Parts: sequence; C-alpha cells; structure tokens
Amino acid sequence: MKPRVLIIMGSDTDLPVMEEAAKVLRRFDIPCIMTVASAHRTPERTLKLIKNAEKSRIQVIIAGAGMAAHLPGVVASHTIIPVIGVPLDASPLGGIDALLSMVQMPPGIPVATVAVGKAGAKNAGLLAAQIMAGNDPALARKILDYRREMTTEVEEKAAKIERRN
Amino acid sequence: MKPRVLIIMGSDTDLPVMEEAAKVLRRFDIPCIMTVASAHRTPERTLKLIKNAEKSRIQVIIAGAGMAAHLPGVVASHTIIPVIGVPLDASPLGGIDALLSMVQMPPGIPVATVAVGKAGAKNAGLLAAQIMAGNDPALARKILDYRREMTTEVEEKAAKIERRN
Amino acid sequence: MKPRVLIIMGSDTDLPVMEEAAKVLRRFDIPCIMTVASAHRTPERTLKLIKNAEKSRIQVIIAGAGMAAHLPGVVASHTIIPVIGVPLDASPLGGIDALLSMVQMPPGIPVATVAVGKAGAKNAGLLAAQIMAGNDPALARKILDYRREMTTEVEEKAAKIERRN
Amino acid sequence: MKPRVLIIMGSDTDLPVMEEAAKVLRRFDIPCIMTVASAHRTPERTLKLIKNAEKSRIQVIIAGAGMAAHLPGVVASHTIIPVIGVPLDASPLGGIDALLSMVQMPPGIPVATVAVGKAGAKNAGLLAAQIMAGNDPALARKILDYRREMTTEVEEKAAKIERRN
Amino acid sequence: MKPRVLIIMGSDTDLPVMEEAAKVLRRFDIPCIMTVASAHRTPERTLKLIKNAEKSRIQVIIAGAGMAAHLPGVVASHTIIPVIGVPLDASPLGGIDALLSMVQMPPGIPVATVAVGKAGAKNAGLLAAQIMAGNDPALARKILDYRREMTTEVEEKAAKIERRN
Amino acid sequence: MKPRVLIIMGSDTDLPVMEEAAKVLRRFDIPCIMTVASAHRTPERTLKLIKNAEKSRIQVIIAGAGMAAHLPGVVASHTIIPVIGVPLDASPLGGIDALLSMVQMPPGIPVATVAVGKAGAKNAGLLAAQIMAGNDPALARKILDYRREMTTEVEEKAAKIERRN
Amino acid sequence: MKPRVLIIMGSDTDLPVMEEAAKVLRRFDIPCIMTVASAHRTPERTLKLIKNAEKSRIQVIIAGAGMAAHLPGVVASHTIIPVIGVPLDASPLGGIDALLSMVQMPPGIPVATVAVGKAGAKNAGLLAAQIMAGNDPALARKILDYRREMTTEVEEKAAKIERRN
Amino acid sequence: MKPRVLIIMGSDTDLPVMEEAAKVLRRFDIPCIMTVASAHRTPERTLKLIKNAEKSRIQVIIAGAGMAAHLPGVVASHTIIPVIGVPLDASPLGGIDALLSMVQMPPGIPVATVAVGKAGAKNAGLLAAQIMAGNDPALARKILDYRREMTTEVEEKAAKIERRN
Repeated sequence: MKPRVLIIMGSDTDLPVMEEAAKVLRRFDIPCIMTVASAHRTPERTLKLIKNAEKSRIQVIIAGAGMAAHLPGVVASHTIIPVIGVPLDASPLGGIDALLSMVQMPPGIPVATVAVGKAGAKNAGLLAAQIMAGNDPALARKILDYRREMTTEVEEKAAKIERRN
Repeated sequence: MKPRVLIIMGSDTDLPVMEEAAKVLRRFDIPCIMTVASAHRTPERTLKLIKNAEKSRIQVIIAGAGMAAHLPGVVASHTIIPVIGVPLDASPLGGIDALLSMVQMPPGIPVATVAVGKAGAKNAGLLAAQIMAGNDPALARKILDYRREMTTEVEEKAAKIERRN
Repeated sequence: MKPRVLIIMGSDTDLPVMEEAAKVLRRFDIPCIMTVASAHRTPERTLKLIKNAEKSRIQVIIAGAGMAAHLPGVVASHTIIPVIGVPLDASPLGGIDALLSMVQMPPGIPVATVAVGKAGAKNAGLLAAQIMAGNDPALARKILDYRREMTTEVEEKAAKIERRN
Repeated sequence: MKPRVLIIMGSDTDLPVMEEAAKVLRRFDIPCIMTVASAHRTPERTLKLIKNAEKSRIQVIIAGAGMAAHLPGVVASHTIIPVIGVPLDASPLGGIDALLSMVQMPPGIPVATVAVGKAGAKNAGLLAAQIMAGNDPALARKILDYRREMTTEVEEKAAKIERRN
Repeated sequence: MKPRVLIIMGSDTDLPVMEEAAKVLRRFDIPCIMTVASAHRTPERTLKLIKNAEKSRIQVIIAGAGMAAHLPGVVASHTIIPVIGVPLDASPLGGIDALLSMVQMPPGIPVATVAVGKAGAKNAGLLAAQIMAGNDPALARKILDYRREMTTEVEEKAAKIERRN
Repeated sequence: MKPRVLIIMGSDTDLPVMEEAAKVLRRFDIPCIMTVASAHRTPERTLKLIKNAEKSRIQVIIAGAGMAAHLPGVVASHTIIPVIGVPLDASPLGGIDALLSMVQMPPGIPVATVAVGKAGAKNAGLLAAQIMAGNDPALARKILDYRREMTTEVEEKAAKIERRN
Repeated sequence: MKPRVLIIMGSDTDLPVMEEAAKVLRRFDIPCIMTVASAHRTPERTLKLIKNAEKSRIQVIIAGAGMAAHLPGVVASHTIIPVIGVPLDASPLGGIDALLSMVQMPPGIPVATVAVGKAGAKNAGLLAAQIMAGNDPALARKILDYRREMTTEVEEKAAKIERRN
Repeated sequence: MKPRVLIIMGSDTDLPVMEEAAKVLRRFDIPCIMTVASAHRTPERTLKLIKNAEKSRIQVIIAGAGMAAHLPGVVASHTIIPVIGVPLDASPLGGIDALLSMVQMPPGIPVATVAVGKAGAKNAGLLAAQIMAGNDPALARKILDYRREMTTEVEEKAAKIERRN
C-alpha cells in the first residue's frame, strides 16, 4: 500500500520515541514509512527524501529531532506538505532546546509543533490522521472511534479508582 | 463564499495579532471567519462554535490565546478538525506560559502549535493553507507562488544591503 | 458520610501523588471522593462530575494534572466551587509546563494553584481543609492540632541533629 | 460594615495592581480592608495584622508581593485563614521570582497562588468571593451573575469582530 | 567552645547537603552548631533561635532550604547578623525555585546567596569563615592555607591527566 | 577617611545602579571607593585593585557586572576579603545570565550574591554594613536605626492606604 | 580587496545589530561582505552563497538570526569554513529561542555561538579576527592594540568615576 | 609532535566529557594536550598555561567547565588565541548556568560556545579542526572525509530502520 505519511528522525536512537507516531498511524491503517535523516549531517539525503515524498504524494511529514532541532524546519522550507515537528529530550537541557528550535519558526515557513517526547510523537500521529481525515470520511470515523475508546478507557480507570473510595 | 477556516481568539484585544492569520488566508482567497470565544468565560459558546464549524465543514480551526491558553486544547478536545494554536504574549511572563499551555497537550488530543505572537499568527494562516492544499491544487500553486515571492523579497533586500558593502 | 471534597486527576498514574491530598483530608475526617477525568479525553465526563459535585454540595474541588494541565481551569470554568490545582511533573520539562498552565489562568476564572508534585498535593488537602474550617470550628481545631504536631515533629528532628553537634 | 477580606501588599507601589482585587470584592459588596506590610521590613506589624484579622473574623487574606515574595507564605504560617498569593512583576526577572517564591510553598503551609500581576489580583478577588460563597447563597448568586455578564461581554465583543468578517 | 556560626536547615533531610558547610568550618576549627527550624512550620522556634544566636554572639548564620525557601530571608528580617542562604534542590523544578526565593530578596533585608546544593553549602562555610577572618588573623592564615591546598590538589589532578597525554 | 568598602563595576554605564550600594554605605558613614574594572578587558587592573584593597585593609568588596558576569568571581579568586556580587540586567536575557554567572560559583571560591539590579545593589551595601557591624557596635546601632526607619516608613505608607479603605 | 569574512543575516531588519560585526572587522582592515539570506525562505540562495564563499576563499562566516535561528547551523552543515552564530532578540521570548537553536547544535556540525544581540555581533567580529590572526601576524598585532585600547578606555572611565569618590 | 590544541578542564571529573574533544582531534591526527586548571582555584596556573600555549604556538584552546563556568572567559581575556567553551552539566540546574556563563561574554572578549555536555565537547574538537583547516589543506580533506563518513553512517542507520517499514 502506498505510504501516506513520512516519519523522519534525526538519529536511529530516536526510534523508541518516534515509533509512537507510527503505532497510532498503523492503528488507523494509514501506511507510513519511517527513516533517518539529519538536517545537518545529511542535508542532501534530507532534500532527496522530500522530493521523493512529493513524488509519491506523501500527505503529511512528521519529523522528530533533539537539541538544536532543525530537521522539521529544514524539511518545511523545501516543501508545502504540512510538517509536524516532535521535539525530543536529547540533551541536559531537557528538550526545551528542541522545542524552541521548532515552534519558534520565523514567519513564512510553519512547523506544526507538538509536545516534547513520547506524548508528542503520539500526538503527531493523531494530528497527521486528523489532517488527512478532512478528505477521508472512513478515517474520520476511525479517529472518532479512537476518541470514544479513550473515553471508555478513562472511565474504566475512574471506576477502578472510585471503588477504592 | 463558504468559510473554510475558523479563527477564534480569547479576547478582542488579540485581534491585531490574530489578523496576521486572516491576512495570509485572504491572500490565498481562502474564506475565513474570525470571532471571539473564551475557553473559560464562555465554554458553552466555544462548544457551539465548534459544532457550527463541523456543520459548515470548516477545514481548519486557528485558535489564539494568552496566559494559561487553554482555548486551542479545549477546542481540539471537541472536534477532529485540525486545530492550530497561536500562543500570545499577554502576561509579564512573555508568552512562555501560553506556549507551554498549548504545545504540551497530553497524548490523545494534539494542537499544532506555532510561534508566540505575530510571527506565529502568520504561520498559522500558512499552515492552514498548506493543510488544505493537499486536496486543492490551485491553492497549492498559490502557496508555491507565495514562497517564490518571499524568495524574491529576500533577494531584493540582500541586493540593497550588498550595495552598501 | 457525604463527601465534602472531590479529588479529580487527569490519569490513574497520578494516584500516588494525588493520594497525598486524600491522606490529609482523611486525617481531618473530611470525607472525600477520588476519581479520574480528563479535560481533553473526557470533556463530557468532566462536566457531569462537576454537575454532580454541585448537586451533592461538594465544598472544594482538587484537580491534579500534568503537561498542558487544563483540568483545573476547565473545571473552574463550569462551577463557582473553589478549585485547587496541583501541577504534576509528567513530561521532560519537569512540571513547569503544568504549573504555568494552571497558575496563569486569565482574569475571570481563578484556580488556586499549589506546588508541583507531592508537596503540592499535600498542601491542596490542607488548603481545602482551611477553606472549609471557616464554618467548621471543630475542623479548625483539628488543623491547629495538626500544626502543633508539625511543630513538635520539627523540634524532635532538631533535637536529634543538635545532639550530634 | 465589618470587613471580610484583608488585602495586604508588600509596598504601596503595588496598589495599582492589588486594587484589582478590591474592585472585584466591592462589586460583590464584600467589605474588605487594604493595607501595607512587609514580611521582611515589618515582621512584627505583619504578625499583628494577622492576629487582628483572626479577632475580627476575616475570612480570606489576599497578599501580593514581588521579588522573593515571602509575604503570603509568612502570613499563612501564622494563621489557618486561607491565604491567596498574588505574585507581582517587580524585578528584571519578570515575576517568575515572585511566582516560584509563593507557589512552591513546602508541605504543611499552603498558599493559594494565582497569576502574575493584574490578572492575578483580579482572580484573587474572585477566588476569595468563591471561597466565601460556600456559606453565603446571596454571594453565590452575585458570582453567577458576574459570570453571565462575562459571557455577555465576550459575546458582544465577538459580534463586533464578526461584523468585520 | 562557644559556637561562632549557626547552621539552620528547613528539614532534617537537608543534613547530608548542609553538613558540607559544617565540615569546612570544622576544618578551620570554627565551632558551629547545627539545627532544624522551619520558617513556616515553626516560626516561633525560628525566632527563638535567632534571639539565642544574638545573645550567644553568633557571628554568621547559614540557612539552607528548598522550594519556596523563605528560611534565610525570614531569619535575616529578625537580625543584623549576616545570613548566608543555601538553596536546595528539593522539588521537580531542580532548585531554581529555592534560588530565586533567596537571592531576589527585596531592598532592605539582604541574604548572601550561594550556589544550589552541596557546592553552595561548602561555599557557605567558606564565606562564613572569610567574613570572620576580617578580625581573626589566625583564621585568615588557615583560609589562605586551604586555598594553597586547593591549588596543590588541582595541580596533582592536572599532573595525573597530563601523564595520559 | 580610610575607605572600608571597595565597589567595582564592569562598566561606567553600571553607575546609576551601583550607586545604590554607595548611598547606603554613606548613610552609615562608611567610607567607600567606587571604580571601574573589567574581569576580561582589564584583568591586570582588576588584580592590582585587589592587591591595593588588601594593602589598604578594605573589609568588603562589592562587584557588579552584567551578562557573563565574571567580575565578582574573579575578584574572589584572588583574595579572601568577602566579595558581594550584584548581577546587572545588561542583555536581552534580563539578568538571569549575570545571576547564574555569579551565584553558581563552584566549590572553593564563594561569592555572596544578591538580587538583580538596583534592589540588589542596595542590599549589597546593607550586607557589607552588616558584615562590618560584627566588630563595630556603633555601626550595628546605625543599622538597627535604619531598620526601625524602614518599619516607620512602611507604617506611614500603610496608614495612607488604610485611610482610603 | 578580496573579502575574507562573509556576514549573513536572516532579515534586513537585523542590519543595525549585525553591523557591529562589520565595524569591528573594518577597524582591523579585514574586508568583509554583508548580505541577507534565510535558511527557510531562501534555502537555494543560502547554498549558493556558501558555494561562492568557498570559491572566493572566505575564511570565516558570521551568521545572525532570530527565533528558531537555523541559519548558522544550516550554513555550517554545507561547509567546513568556521561558522560563528549570533543569536538575535526577535521574539517575545527575548532571544533564548535563537540562542538554544544555535548553541545546541548536535554532534558533527559545530556553530561557534556568541552572546545574544549587539554584544554578540561585536564579539563575532572579534572572534573572526582572532581565528584569522593565527596566520596573519599583522592582524594579531592589531587585535593586541585593540585590547590595549580597551584597557585604556576602561581606565579612563575608572578615573572619571574615581574622581567622584 | 608539537601539540596544536590545548584542552583545559575545570576539574578532573570533567575528563569523560572533555575526552570527546580529544578523540575527534586524534582522529584527525591533530596533536593536543589535556590538562586541568581552575579559573578560581588556580588563577596563576591558568595564566601560566596560557603563556606556555602562546609560546608553544598552540592554535586553539578548548576549555570546559560547569556551574559559573568562567574558565574559557578568563582564558580568552589573557590571549588572542581563539577559545572554544564547552559548558558542562555539573549542578542541579542542568548546565544552563554554565552555558550562560560562557556564551554571554560581554563585548570585547569572545568565547566560541558550543552545546552543553558530550555533544558540545565533540563539536569543540571539530570546530578547532575547522579553524586550523583554513591553512592546512590536508586537514581540510580529513574533515571532509569525516563528514562523508557521517553521511554514510546516517544512511546505514536509515537503511536498517527502513527495512522495518
């Protein structure tokens, strides 16, 4: 099946975090492709990935990186495919460096930034799905189902805790 | 023309900033509607706006707010329309409060966060356009034109400065 | 016995921290009820809990949450029962995200915010007790006793350390 | 009429900010008394104010201070009347110093902290009113009216902006 | 021997850190006394300690505390004996809360603040010694000896590392 | 009269802030000398000033600087005269850079750090006076008088505000 | 004369700040060229500038940018000419965003980062000069002269202030 | 072989981090010498190291330190050899103290600052190499080779992850 989402991470050590995005997408049967590229160490490779993404009609790009996390911004500067940035906690500064390096993109080239770390990676997958659901009613239904399951899950946890009262 | 983007702000004093988003959308001939709603002071109104947005098939919601800026998160929790959050600098803490209140959304409900203030509002308009361009080749061309104009603009500025060398 | 305090937490994983609030209340024989609700994943459930709290004449609501911690603010926007917010350390940013998302509530809807984590949860219980003690002289006496015990406890620790001098 | 709320500020230059709290209380016909006391420069005076507050059955104390803002914490350590802390922006650090000096109170002595500056002062007045409304149904009605007015105000602002669409 | 320095800490759990101050003082044969007192939980005890310190002609007071660390400021407001504050890392915010609660003392009552944690505790001991050395040439010589030993120690470490080159 | 305190600032533009320290000292009739020296631009001059200070039996050194504010630390590393550091707000980062560059001195060489800016400069003067008062009962009396005046001043301000109640 | 340093800034509004770098270089008779290029809005132009710089044997590149300031990092990823980054204060967050986006470059591609704003721009010019002075004894002498002038300047300012003592 | 780079660290406990710089230099066959010196505890030794470095024609100095990390700034103030600063994470504040103490050097004396911790140490080695490569074509080739290897390494990691798609 043709991939609809490209997930790029700055380093293979980011996989355990970024996989949260892929898991969400798989749950919605959205084919995605994961790979590694560095804005700084492999600028050419990054460019090639973007060009390929455009050719293969990728609909959303998710990019995760730590420290001075330029990857999503650099990707966004070469394409108009929406880019979601996941800041990673990869330095003694705890991820605030990556967050500001993504969210504070100057006017002209936006990066849709989500939370630092695993929570953000999961939300990146959900945001990508929501973006694509605008033209995919079946996907929209799946997301609504997912939300209902979240509700049920919270209610079950609540019931367990309430029993302790 | 039917609006495709809903821009909500927490207070009418946010208009000079949030108008940057509307300006960008108008430039791309994307009809949008601007209004005021507060996650805290008018929760019912906020809900009604979301329901109306869903009925009138709004494609993207942009929400700007300052301080403990819950508006985009609350909106996002009631719809699967993609929500873009613009953190505003509305307290002595300089906007970091609004930024963290948006971008750090817990897993399950994403908010696509952009930069604090005017730069962010403009990028929110651009991100909304990019999201809709996935199914609107005419819009995609306009965004590509816009990028080329940005390029030209930078080159003209460069020429002016280089003349001084 | 009819509960006087409602303790809501955003996730069942917050229980070990939020239990500090319940422990304090139990020590003062203040009946309380603990449950889970998410401002974002279960907005309807959150609303229902508030309506029930109002019906059953809950006097104080304590709400704990992490990251973009909207729970106490959302609860406070639907009731005039005093709401105490406990920011939790649930992201790589160390709790400053939750703190600012609570304490920086915009004008109109206050959240009484306490410290991040266990210390804050304990103080939330004490603050709830102090709020109710205004009309409950027996409770006031218990709190005063508690303070005296704290004094004694510090003095005993001091004695132990002074013996080492 | 006997005052029900005591508003203390660390310096007379804090009056323009702290008056926001008084304004809200006056609007609800809650008699309050404003004064100046410094935790550090007038510790005895601070103590005397607290003892008088207890004698005259003050129900809530609001304390505003900037920098290493110990006032609310020191007040709270001498009484079990609920203390609301308003952090003020009074140094080049922008109020984060006052915020952390209040909200991070160690376990045992809570301070109900609100936002930095004017927004916080206003919310302090509202929180005090909500605390007293638990035993004052007439006051509760006034607060609910106030909330409805806030809603109307937001709707009017929204209408004005929507007309521009 | 009559103690010359009083070391107060907010909690007995602070002992492993604050002992660094005592160790330095013992090394200079400066008699000191360590005890526990809380600005908030035992305000009277804190006052009594200060009065005793003045009577017994204590020359410097070292006070360590975490979170909203009011202890040194409260001590300083009741005496003109120089007070050294040691901010402790006792919350998820990593000590910045304690640091700002001490160093940002408003004009009128200074606290001589040192670094967060063990390094700060050690430096508090050294600073106390330097303050007393102004009138104690024998002590001044001991401090100069200590500095020379530090120099030697660094040189030995340097030699070890240089051998690896 | 022989100066007892040396006030050094990193730049002559720091004079309006650092003069607060001198004012306090003059009020106590403590002769002081103010000068400019830069840890980085005039390291030799800085050294010479310290040697002179030691020869002329200066009792306390106050050093104010902004940005990466090394001046007090560098001074402290060359003398055992107590050094008080005043962090100045001299960059877009608002003084937190200068604060951390002073207060976080590594173990071995303490700097007694006070608040950022004017409040800190004033407190530096007071702290210097308190340090010297240990052996100067007349000075101690002056400081106690000063504290009483502060008390009176606060009470007068309180009276003015209370009249408005 | 052939330029030896290339100064790039993200926007022409950065000129008043970045000119500080050029002024220093001119003072040392180091020919430099200033221009505008945006890592995001003109990635191709940025690349072309780098290639030209390599061809014309530019020895150091200085790049200034604000917000998510990727320019120096992107430049550094395409060349091994040393790149100096000047973070600019161009958002409500005060320059900390630009600072972290530069200095926290991940391993492999360094950016030599200096202070935020004008001070940093000036130091960028000096650092460039020092880098080139390694193989240019005449330049080294000029820098040493400059340092001596700085010393004299500080001494003159000191003299003026000392006269006031 | 004559050393070309001097690596100084503030304490021998910094060796595991600073060795990353040495490893990079060794990989490029650049002879370097590592040693320990403290700006504060051994100011004379620091000066002597700088004088020796100048005599032995050291081309770049790398200095790593934690907390109020003055070492690189103090070194830079005594020489015009380019100084690279590596901020170390050596306090509960997580390295932001060391970062600001280095990067915010006031105008006149630049420090080329890199990232906090190991990533920064490695980049310091690379930056030193790039600075020297300006006059050493063989070294330039080695750095370009190194970059190509980084590219290959990323591509191999990418391939491994892509196989999982």
